[in-house]
Amino acid sequence: MLNIGVIGYGYWGPNLVRNFAELSGATVAAVSDLDPKKLATVQRRYPAVTTTTDWQQLIRDPRIDVIAVATPVSSHFELGMATLKAGKHLWIEKPMAETSLQARKLLDEADRRKRVLFVDHTFVYTGAIRKMSEIIGAGELGRIFYYDSIRVNLGLFQRDVSVISDLAVHDFSLLEFLFHEHPVAVSASGINHFPGTPENLAYITLFYDSGMIAHANVSWLAPVKVRQILIGGSRKMITYDDLEPSEKVKIYDKGVSFTDDPKAILEMRVGYRTGDMWAPKLDTTEALRIEGEHFIDCIDCGGSPRTDARLGLKVVELIEAATSSMRGRGETVYLNRRTI
Amino acid sequence: MLNIGVIGYGYWGPNLVRNFAELSGATVAAVSDLDPKKLATVQRRYPAVTTTTDWQQLIRDPRIDVIAVATPVSSHFELGMATLKAGKHLWIEKPMAETSLQARKLLDEADRRKRVLFVDHTFVYTGAIRKMSEIIGAGELGRIFYYDSIRVNLGLFQRDVSVISDLAVHDFSLLEFLFHEHPVAVSASGINHFPGTPENLAYITLFYDSGMIAHANVSWLAPVKVRQILIGGSRKMITYDDLEPSEKVKIYDKGVSFTDDPKAILEMRVGYRTGDMWAPKLDTTEALRIEGEHFIDCIDCGGSPRTDARLGLKVVELIEAATSSMRGRGETVYLNRRTI
Amino acid sequence: MLNIGVIGYGYWGPNLVRNFAELSGATVAAVSDLDPKKLATVQRRYPAVTTTTDWQQLIRDPRIDVIAVATPVSSHFELGMATLKAGKHLWIEKPMAETSLQARKLLDEADRRKRVLFVDHTFVYTGAIRKMSEIIGAGELGRIFYYDSIRVNLGLFQRDVSVISDLAVHDFSLLEFLFHEHPVAVSASGINHFPGTPENLAYITLFYDSGMIAHANVSWLAPVKVRQILIGGSRKMITYDDLEPSEKVKIYDKGVSFTDDPKAILEMRVGYRTGDMWAPKLDTTEALRIEGEHFIDCIDCGGSPRTDARLGLKVVELIEAATSSMRGRGETVYLNRRTI
Amino acid sequence: MLNIGVIGYGYWGPNLVRNFAELSGATVAAVSDLDPKKLATVQRRYPAVTTTTDWQQLIRDPRIDVIAVATPVSSHFELGMATLKAGKHLWIEKPMAETSLQARKLLDEADRRKRVLFVDHTFVYTGAIRKMSEIIGAGELGRIFYYDSIRVNLGLFQRDVSVISDLAVHDFSLLEFLFHEHPVAVSASGINHFPGTPENLAYITLFYDSGMIAHANVSWLAPVKVRQILIGGSRKMITYDDLEPSEKVKIYDKGVSFTDDPKAILEMRVGYRTGDMWAPKLDTTEALRIEGEHFIDCIDCGGSPRTDARLGLKVVELIEAATSSMRGRGETVYLNRRTI
Repeated sequence: MLNIGVIGYGYWGPNLVRNFAELSGATVAAVSDLDPKKLATVQRRYPAVTTTTDWQQLIRDPRIDVIAVATPVSSHFELGMATLKAGKHLWIEKPMAETSLQARKLLDEADRRKRVLFVDHTFVYTGAIRKMSEIIGAGELGRIFYYDSIRVNLGLFQRDVSVISDLAVHDFSLLEFLFHEHPVAVSASGINHFPGTPENLAYITLFYDSGMIAHANVSWLAPVKVRQILIGGSRKMITYDDLEPSEKVKIYDKGVSFTDDPKAILEMRVGYRTGDMWAPKLDTTEALRIEGEHFIDCIDCGGSPRTDARLGLKVVELIEAATSSMRGRGETVYLNRRTI
Repeated sequence: MLNIGVIGYGYWGPNLVRNFAELSGATVAAVSDLDPKKLATVQRRYPAVTTTTDWQQLIRDPRIDVIAVATPVSSHFELGMATLKAGKHLWIEKPMAETSLQARKLLDEADRRKRVLFVDHTFVYTGAIRKMSEIIGAGELGRIFYYDSIRVNLGLFQRDVSVISDLAVHDFSLLEFLFHEHPVAVSASGINHFPGTPENLAYITLFYDSGMIAHANVSWLAPVKVRQILIGGSRKMITYDDLEPSEKVKIYDKGVSFTDDPKAILEMRVGYRTGDMWAPKLDTTEALRIEGEHFIDCIDCGGSPRTDARLGLKVVELIEAATSSMRGRGETVYLNRRTI
Repeated sequence: MLNIGVIGYGYWGPNLVRNFAELSGATVAAVSDLDPKKLATVQRRYPAVTTTTDWQQLIRDPRIDVIAVATPVSSHFELGMATLKAGKHLWIEKPMAETSLQARKLLDEADRRKRVLFVDHTFVYTGAIRKMSEIIGAGELGRIFYYDSIRVNLGLFQRDVSVISDLAVHDFSLLEFLFHEHPVAVSASGINHFPGTPENLAYITLFYDSGMIAHANVSWLAPVKVRQILIGGSRKMITYDDLEPSEKVKIYDKGVSFTDDPKAILEMRVGYRTGDMWAPKLDTTEALRIEGEHFIDCIDCGGSPRTDARLGLKVVELIEAATSSMRGRGETVYLNRRTI
Repeated sequence: MLNIGVIGYGYWGPNLVRNFAELSGATVAAVSDLDPKKLATVQRRYPAVTTTTDWQQLIRDPRIDVIAVATPVSSHFELGMATLKAGKHLWIEKPMAETSLQARKLLDEADRRKRVLFVDHTFVYTGAIRKMSEIIGAGELGRIFYYDSIRVNLGLFQRDVSVISDLAVHDFSLLEFLFHEHPVAVSASGINHFPGTPENLAYITLFYDSGMIAHANVSWLAPVKVRQILIGGSRKMITYDDLEPSEKVKIYDKGVSFTDDPKAILEMRVGYRTGDMWAPKLDTTEALRIEGEHFIDCIDCGGSPRTDARLGLKVVELIEAATSSMRGRGETVYLNRRTI
């Protein structure tokens, strides 16, 4: 039975505690938060859990095997590093760190100490995304042509991070998870419409050596909420709509075919193919539960999480690169391919 | 009564002839096309119209006051210049020319000879866009924050022009028409997934000095057809969906407000405002009919068309700039502000 | 090569002529209409077709093998009977006749003279309905529980027939076509909101011995257009949406299961099953073309059309029964099971 | 400060307790339920609340002013009558009673003792319905032509009551609330597809003297969830879609106009009018909170609730009449107009 300490009981922490509390292989031993009112809520809901305003008590507590860090990103590095140095396993919210240098140090520390470092890219563990991964992994789409995502809505403006860190982060983790290919270059544009605030709207393009292209359109300033992804392959195509109540994922047997004859290509003899559409049943288990069980499994069996420090680092690198390109009005930023 | 000669009876020419034939102030005198079979169709439908495979006959015919050019873009410059030099008014399909240099020469020639040069950016004359123009022109949206467009579907791949010329051209004309502000820079990315063919998918961002940002996502390789535009302003926001049968334009009384107090901005005290939504009734008159009447009006009264050579040239410049940026993987291309 | 004469060139006649003209086994020999202007249109479009304002000329013309009747329903019986008595095959618009007595006489006459009597229930021949028929015919839905249809929109008010004849007629033909089971009773309600006009809104329920129940909700007075059908079976369920551009038919692997144990049923131990959804590719050939070929086939090979006089008569009986029930505020009307 | 006792902590009771606990003018004093486990949950969540398995304790407790009954409908009469006889105010779940006779006795008892009897028709208090009531009450729709509702989904099958009591009950309360007119007759049809279970699908038509007609299509056996209402008036029309995240209510400036000239009516010279569509902002306060405050208000000021015993009785009468008609295959059931 693993003992878990949770640092931070703000927006996401309560979900972590609730889910960890229901896992069979683990128990929540302690929660820390700077706000005593939040700790009172913990006490009321979970009388057996120890609470404290001092997160260091959790780090020092020898009974605690695992620390989950659910604080603002600016404290991730300090808390994460302290956790690993204390020899504990680490669950950390996304993005993993403020800079790729910090993320790399966390990765190295976890490797050196052979601790599990789990980055909580929750979206990757939803039933819809796991089904898409299964379909893409089986090669059903053929060669991947593009990934195109829209995540827009009105609010919630963040104070300290741009809309890239807040929303495009989902696409970055998803791209790594689904395609196992790193982009070679990024071009992004974006804007803050209110002086002194982070960018509230951004368009990011990722280029891949395989010929795949990926794009994310993210905004806090749209009159309607949209959460849609299109993935086009040479054999089939996928649409994903998170706001659909049940048929979130649809697979279209559609495509384009050029004959191999170079002359035909010159003449653009294109064939358009349309077949059936199919919406697979999706597992509706809460993603956090799937994650929790997977995390425990990795600790017990020594495996590497699907959203491990390498994936987490990649995501931070993409945020950095996209932000840098955005501030240069779309200037191409090339990614170091040997980063990991 | 104006006599119109139409060059080209391929995809769009039949629509021009049908609409011109119904105008009260004009009559279709002659049609030319290289394909005698198409001319036979003209003869059957309009027995009174002269037909010829030689477009020069139309240029030389002194009874003809107006030439409409509905041929592939590669011939626009030659046919347009010949028309203007013969002292005739010119209706020309979009894009106006292959290069901005050609477009500028056509503009200059029309100015010198005081002929009307009308570029057929049909989309601008639809009931939906005219209503949007009316609303935006009245200042109802407040300061404009962004324009965001998606035009994707499966096919039709073009042989000679990229998806930017084919689809983003609508956004470029619309932006000029709606906002009367020229972008200062462009960043675009795109890809051709089939060797030897033009780019079939592109993402284009336009930057404006006012702080507005515009984006177009265009593709011939999507499993579903989408034609959507979002326009965000400081007071209201618009959504446009061309596939909606009746409520294509929706105006949302939604927005974000920051207090003027700099400290409040620092703390991101954001107010989200949501009010009523309103879908105005739209005029359903065919856009080509509105265009035809406007064109005749301009000839009769000496006015300048809403889609004149200046707008047409701007669109060609944007296609050039976006294409150049796209081939540099998003590299920022700055637009000369004194082009016109 | 069959020679076809078409009586009536109003709303639907032009579609018939256009489609018959393209069939390989037939040719349109003559068209009659009371309005000389309409005949002038025929002449212009089809110079080889004879036109006349006297329909009797077509009946008397020995070269004509087939008469298609596309006139208002009040003249169907007279024109249809004259056609059959002249020994010609009959294509007749829906509903087949004003009364079931008339419909039966037409049926008997066609039987006696061994002529093909084809009732133009076009809807039945669309790609969507043929696909649904294929799926249902293969037993994929299991036992059929219900059929539920909505056909509402604003207008077009008919002068001489109620909304049941205008819209529910599609459901009546479809029910006969899909399920091959005749209802045993009808209960309908409806209303005319404007004095002196036919009912503009109606709700019709059909009861079947098998336990199936069918319902149609039809109206000319709805603010939005809806064309939707739900079909529920013990194993699968279908939704049909005619306004969807491509995925009109969706098959849901969903259902309810009760255990066989009577005690469990008492306790309502219900299992809800949800699986994949599947939208099959549909043939987009124009329904009228499919009908035309099927009609020619029946004449050539002596077969009976899928929408023969028996189906046509059943539809007229259902219109009569539903109208009678509607005027009695839902009073149950039992159908004679041995009508045919 | 009113002291409330809640009987029943099953499906709905927890929502009542949570909402009552947050009201400023009231406090939850005690909760009874037959299941001690449920009472333990109450204790954990609300340590100050007394719990008991004996509901009679609540009735006898002199400190308790108000009893809320949230038990199955079969016990409503007994519990409600005991509450009123003890001189307490009564909040009762819908439907108010199993039979109209019981409902009338409760109404009479409350009247005699001058106690407030509040029937919890929650749907009536949602922001969407309150807005619709405001619009209809202001006469914006003109003469009301029809009300047309669809409430279908897969499950949840009820053991003891039919789909009419479960789903159409919402329409019955809404009709009374919105239009203040009692129907004069009912025709309903329905079916149970599984032997020994209540009807799982029903179609109900209500007839009104004013010429309005109302219809509800309710089912537990549909592959998709639908919650839609159309309301047509002579001047405007409303659509309501409960599954829309924000624009649930839309008002269409659409209609039909006949000229007054009787000859024109005979010729069906119908004018179709289409104007703007408008989706008003809706109050998103939880309906139960609005209800709770309104209930306290009625007790404090002696007013009559919007969902009082008269409305509750009318709903029970409609359930009875519809059920009776349904079992007679649509047979018209006339309602006594002087019931209240």
